[in-house]
Amino acid sequence: MKIGIIGSGVVAQTLGAKLIELGHDVVLGTRDPAKLDEKKNMAGTLREWLAKVNKANKKGRVATFQEAAAHGDLLFSATHGQASIEALTLAAADKVGTKVLIDTGNELDFSKGMPPGALASQSNCLGERIQAAFPNLKVVKSLNTIGAQVMVAPQALAGGEHTVFVSGNDAPAKAAAAELLKSFGWKDVLDLGDISSARGPEMYMAMWLRLWGATGTGMINVKVVR
Amino acid sequence: MKIGIIGSGVVAQTLGAKLIELGHDVVLGTRDPAKLDEKKNMAGTLREWLAKVNKANKKGRVATFQEAAAHGDLLFSATHGQASIEALTLAAADKVGTKVLIDTGNELDFSKGMPPGALASQSNCLGERIQAAFPNLKVVKSLNTIGAQVMVAPQALAGGEHTVFVSGNDAPAKAAAAELLKSFGWKDVLDLGDISSARGPEMYMAMWLRLWGATGTGMINVKVVR
Repeated sequence: MKIGIIGSGVVAQTLGAKLIELGHDVVLGTRDPAKLDEKKNMAGTLREWLAKVNKANKKGRVATFQEAAAHGDLLFSATHGQASIEALTLAAADKVGTKVLIDTGNELDFSKGMPPGALASQSNCLGERIQAAFPNLKVVKSLNTIGAQVMVAPQALAGGEHTVFVSGNDAPAKAAAAELLKSFGWKDVLDLGDISSARGPEMYMAMWLRLWGATGTGMINVKVVR
Repeated sequence: MKIGIIGSGVVAQTLGAKLIELGHDVVLGTRDPAKLDEKKNMAGTLREWLAKVNKANKKGRVATFQEAAAHGDLLFSATHGQASIEALTLAAADKVGTKVLIDTGNELDFSKGMPPGALASQSNCLGERIQAAFPNLKVVKSLNTIGAQVMVAPQALAGGEHTVFVSGNDAPAKAAAAELLKSFGWKDVLDLGDISSARGPEMYMAMWLRLWGATGTGMINVKVVR
């Protein structure tokens, strides 16, 4: 599948590498694709990423936000949460027609020290705001409840016996997202409902940050028991 | 142990009945103890509760908020979250000296239909507000992440293989809370940190409400995998 990833930090690079490994045709979108040697958020440079993913007959590319958005039949939003709307605007995501967008973002406040604050609330939900700003996209909130490493390797934690969530207004879009998640190794993909249900996983980030602090590792998640 | 419960709805009645079953000396505090026949929030009347818990040599009592707070060597706050500060004020909880208070509350907004909104945020944490308002109490946030039935019977769900959280500034108070939780059957009591870490489980309520909606049952919880 042709996949465009808006973002180039640790989440974007990790998702991109996994998708390429699975055989997808991936373009990573970044603000300035000429800056291949700039150290990215919690990740290596894009030159290092390209060296890692481009082997044998598999290929990944780095391009502008706009090229990534145009390339993908399915898109990921993988910037910092606070930057997502701006990045999607720069990507001209309003002009790419009807596409599934998987939004992985969290809005975090680092201004008051560690742990950062999770800025989601009943009246501030990034997934809902993206859906409202880009009605042509079929937004699916997912993957924002776990660290990048766990996103693409759920089986590395507790034998994969834990849960990932999808929220969105469009059932086929959620099914497409769930299929990708299953290809990553996810066994328990729980549909929370329409895009307003993204408030749940977004506000949960406050819990994740405290679990991270209490356990001292980002290799954590929750399994929903029912 | 002498235990005072501030509140008389479903959480208070369920916790009270379990504590009495375990042999504790429990007083349930309510705004007007004369109203024994008033239907309580999602629960039966207090007359029904008294009939249920007072059998053989075991006893529970219903009294004012103030009597419950004076009675308990350990206290529970088990009102609606929005009513907690007022109920503790009516209970004269500032005048009972140093006591452990386990705060089980969630602030929920039912004004916009179902599911209700979880009002907790980075800048609105009930556990922190109770601790600030009653510095004589050693506040432990716990049990707000599950329904009343699961609180006192964790083994009824997934063999008890799931997690309950404690947050608070005082380590011995958290240890006392954890001991009570273990007597209920909890196997995994996770200490999240000081009372500011209560933002995690309070904001998680937004997730719980969506899990409840998606699964159609309140018999749900999460197991933290790490």
